[in-house]
Amino acid sequence: MPPRPSCQEAFFLPKMKLPPEGPAEWNELGRKLITKTRIFELDSVKFRHPVRETERDFVVLRPPEWVNVLALTPDHQLVLVRQFRYGLKTFSLEIPGGMMDRGESALVAGQRELLEETGYQGGTAEILGAIAPNPAIQDNHCHIVLVRDAVPSGSIAWDPDEEIEIAWLPVDEVLALARNGGITHSLVLSALFLFEPLWLKMKADHV
Amino acid sequence: MPPRPSCQEAFFLPKMKLPPEGPAEWNELGRKLITKTRIFELDSVKFRHPVRETERDFVVLRPPEWVNVLALTPDHQLVLVRQFRYGLKTFSLEIPGGMMDRGESALVAGQRELLEETGYQGGTAEILGAIAPNPAIQDNHCHIVLVRDAVPSGSIAWDPDEEIEIAWLPVDEVLALARNGGITHSLVLSALFLFEPLWLKMKADHV
Repeated sequence: MPPRPSCQEAFFLPKMKLPPEGPAEWNELGRKLITKTRIFELDSVKFRHPVRETERDFVVLRPPEWVNVLALTPDHQLVLVRQFRYGLKTFSLEIPGGMMDRGESALVAGQRELLEETGYQGGTAEILGAIAPNPAIQDNHCHIVLVRDAVPSGSIAWDPDEEIEIAWLPVDEVLALARNGGITHSLVLSALFLFEPLWLKMKADHV
Repeated sequence: MPPRPSCQEAFFLPKMKLPPEGPAEWNELGRKLITKTRIFELDSVKFRHPVRETERDFVVLRPPEWVNVLALTPDHQLVLVRQFRYGLKTFSLEIPGGMMDRGESALVAGQRELLEETGYQGGTAEILGAIAPNPAIQDNHCHIVLVRDAVPSGSIAWDPDEEIEIAWLPVDEVLALARNGGITHSLVLSALFLFEPLWLKMKADHV
């Protein structure tokens, strides 16, 4: 009896169903502004398929770049913010963050948002990476900044109508909240989980 | 010498700066439609602060509920899809998923999207959780569905102009891609990392 084919060998959806070159990179033909809000522009973008030459319009949100901050205190707690979120009309526990100003680097923006929202400032800051909030309908990234040795050393500068509860918890407790539903914001979850391997290394090194 | 205060004890941003009851839950006064697209409605929503009685308008995206699917083959590979994403104008490696139909459960939607996008069907399906794509500006959730024993057993039903490359990789390799930048979509990252503890348990149990 021949060996049972692996799932991969048995895969009956032939690649030939795809265009030989795989999914195509559509070409942008032009765009027009649908509406502009305080926090993003919404465009309708016309694309053309390079092979089929069909054209289709897609909506694209154009927010500024975003930044999220993992602010680690000297005793290895993470600084958290809790605020009312108007989209889901609920309170959300998150890490500090916000919109980057035009021309501002992620490092500078992260340190600025941390200070403005929480009054914390750090010794050093580094970029852990960047993720795509939603590449299907948004053209921005969310940058993840790690600030070490964050201590309360400045004054809060909330935007009008901003009200933030500031909290801090040991990293492992924050990761547990991320896994048990205490934290639900996908950008915050991604940042925390991408930080986790570095955190495990820091713990192993007794840093 | 007194013990050095912990970071928490030294915290000098008094809670009294906050309203005594913490951040307030704003009341919605009304909303109006700004624009309606194929994949979401965009509303302007007027809120009033319950104490200060100030009023402010916020924009809220209203997409349908979303679902993402972790489809595990019998030999413990995850089914992946790679497609051109119009927001970032780039290819993105993701898990299958999409918009839930009105009245459709997450379980049914997850199995439907898996079948439509990849032709895979599973033995069982379960909900792993739900996350908030962006609670600040969106009112929807992304549900995470785990489908076990997924095998190619149906026919693909792509939307017009949908072109998807279907791939499959061992779970550990997918998690490595999530950590090294090979996967960048925040909703996919969150789903993979929320699945990770269960996966580690499955491996330990030799399931």
